[in-house]
Amino acid sequence: MASRTPSAAPTSPRTGRSGGRTAGAPAGPSSRAGEHTPAEPSTPAEPSTPAESSTRAGEGVPAGKGGERPRRRLSVDERREQLIAVALELFSRRPPEEVSIDDIAAAAGASRPLVYHYFPGKQALYEESLRRAGRELAGRFEEPADGPLSERLYRVMGRYLDFVQSHGPGFAALLRGGSVAASAGTSAVIDEVRRAAHDQILSHLAVPSPSPGLRLTVRAWIANAEITSLEWLGERSVPLEELQLHLVQEFVAALTLTAAREPALAAELAGFFADERPDGPTGRLVRELAALFADPGIADAVTALVVEPPN
Amino acid sequence: MASRTPSAAPTSPRTGRSGGRTAGAPAGPSSRAGEHTPAEPSTPAEPSTPAESSTRAGEGVPAGKGGERPRRRLSVDERREQLIAVALELFSRRPPEEVSIDDIAAAAGASRPLVYHYFPGKQALYEESLRRAGRELAGRFEEPADGPLSERLYRVMGRYLDFVQSHGPGFAALLRGGSVAASAGTSAVIDEVRRAAHDQILSHLAVPSPSPGLRLTVRAWIANAEITSLEWLGERSVPLEELQLHLVQEFVAALTLTAAREPALAAELAGFFADERPDGPTGRLVRELAALFADPGIADAVTALVVEPPN
Repeated sequence: MASRTPSAAPTSPRTGRSGGRTAGAPAGPSSRAGEHTPAEPSTPAEPSTPAESSTRAGEGVPAGKGGERPRRRLSVDERREQLIAVALELFSRRPPEEVSIDDIAAAAGASRPLVYHYFPGKQALYEESLRRAGRELAGRFEEPADGPLSERLYRVMGRYLDFVQSHGPGFAALLRGGSVAASAGTSAVIDEVRRAAHDQILSHLAVPSPSPGLRLTVRAWIANAEITSLEWLGERSVPLEELQLHLVQEFVAALTLTAAREPALAAELAGFFADERPDGPTGRLVRELAALFADPGIADAVTALVVEPPN
Repeated sequence: MASRTPSAAPTSPRTGRSGGRTAGAPAGPSSRAGEHTPAEPSTPAEPSTPAESSTRAGEGVPAGKGGERPRRRLSVDERREQLIAVALELFSRRPPEEVSIDDIAAAAGASRPLVYHYFPGKQALYEESLRRAGRELAGRFEEPADGPLSERLYRVMGRYLDFVQSHGPGFAALLRGGSVAASAGTSAVIDEVRRAAHDQILSHLAVPSPSPGLRLTVRAWIANAEITSLEWLGERSVPLEELQLHLVQEFVAALTLTAAREPALAAELAGFFADERPDGPTGRLVRELAALFADPGIADAVTALVVEPPN
């Protein structure tokens, strides 16, 4: 699936939605004083970077809107951000073993020694890229506490699945386990994203003190979303919108099962259902299940089970 | 949690239920001719193994039942199996970074050079142990196709959770991701176990040609079982029997949701419910849900959702 030809390299570096600055954009007020001169750092280990100078014209610094800003050297922070953005783009498309420092240098219009000046090696760049991706993904979980819960979750899942589509191919092996790039660092990033998802969902549930059972339900559903979207990435056997709807409905079902076990949650569940709308994910699920249980064969069998067992 | 003291080392090596032979047991008919002499191999890289000779008395070869068989040197295959069994026991209790070749040698009553004669290093022994553990776990999924489906699955989950309790502490990091011992080899073992679980469940469902949606449901539920049992291992916040019941009930719910989306599955679901018993996991779930939906607040809200939306 992943192409190894240089033409697959991105031409416009993208940064994460949070924390990243677009390469070539002016440094914000938080930038360190003097970071623009000298623009490129002197590299003690690599005193001369001829490739860097020779590729200056094609450095990939985007001109300002309408071309009103002249091309200039990137500041230290800008160059670092640009390298991370380029690496993230490449690592999102292909597994780490198929991306080399040379690929990253080429896509960034930089020399190999320059990349090594900023990062000790590929693993460090990979982990930094993953950290940015994780931060972006965690940002996508944020959703205003307005409207029915299943509709909020549906919007979140739309953004999540969009992320999976654009970044998943490269990071899938890491999530599946057994990636050569897996490390304590990558594991920490993944854990942090899962925790962010868990906390966001609990904040929308707004249950005063969530039980261990409810927390487990949320974690298990997050695992479901992960595995389902990874499987989808490989097979794409259903339209993405169906997956989005099904995952939300599976959350509603999991929440209902948890409430069936935990009487303290029943009042919360009543409030949750009361806020839902007929044309939302929960309303559609309820009607689908009502139709299913109207099947005479299923209705008879289920009715027989409602009878208290004789003992 | 994991103890590093030598007293934590097992005294009776255990092997996997399938494929492994108990150390010291007579070799089966499939053993290679002549493998009993010489008993210990000559080790070209380590010509003398004094520790091996000096620990002969405490070698841990179990005497036959009633002590009728005299102690003897282990054959090549027996020694290999014994080392794997000892390693599996140690790697089940502690993460790989907390188990050394010296620990394994000590627990096996063997010398360090002898262990290295059989295995190039700790990673190879770890992967072989994991392979045995995986084979044992896959064996536990096997269940006769008799009785209600949820009761079959309940028995399987009992054996699975028993395995998690006895082997989980050491392998948890590997399943969570980010273990230092993760490799293509360990990943392949994990994938194979997941595939075995998937195939077993599908065979019990006995659906002629399972849809992509049904396969995805099964895979997602397996991920749920994994994550839930790993979380349980860390917190043990509910009794294991509850987890066993809840996981089975979650499978029933996931199957029902899939059937609600896929009309072709409705007939299968009717047959599934018809075979269930009131005191089984499905019967209990049905009554729990009936009680929940008898709550006036929930009943009213859900009834409002059954109405077709106005458009």
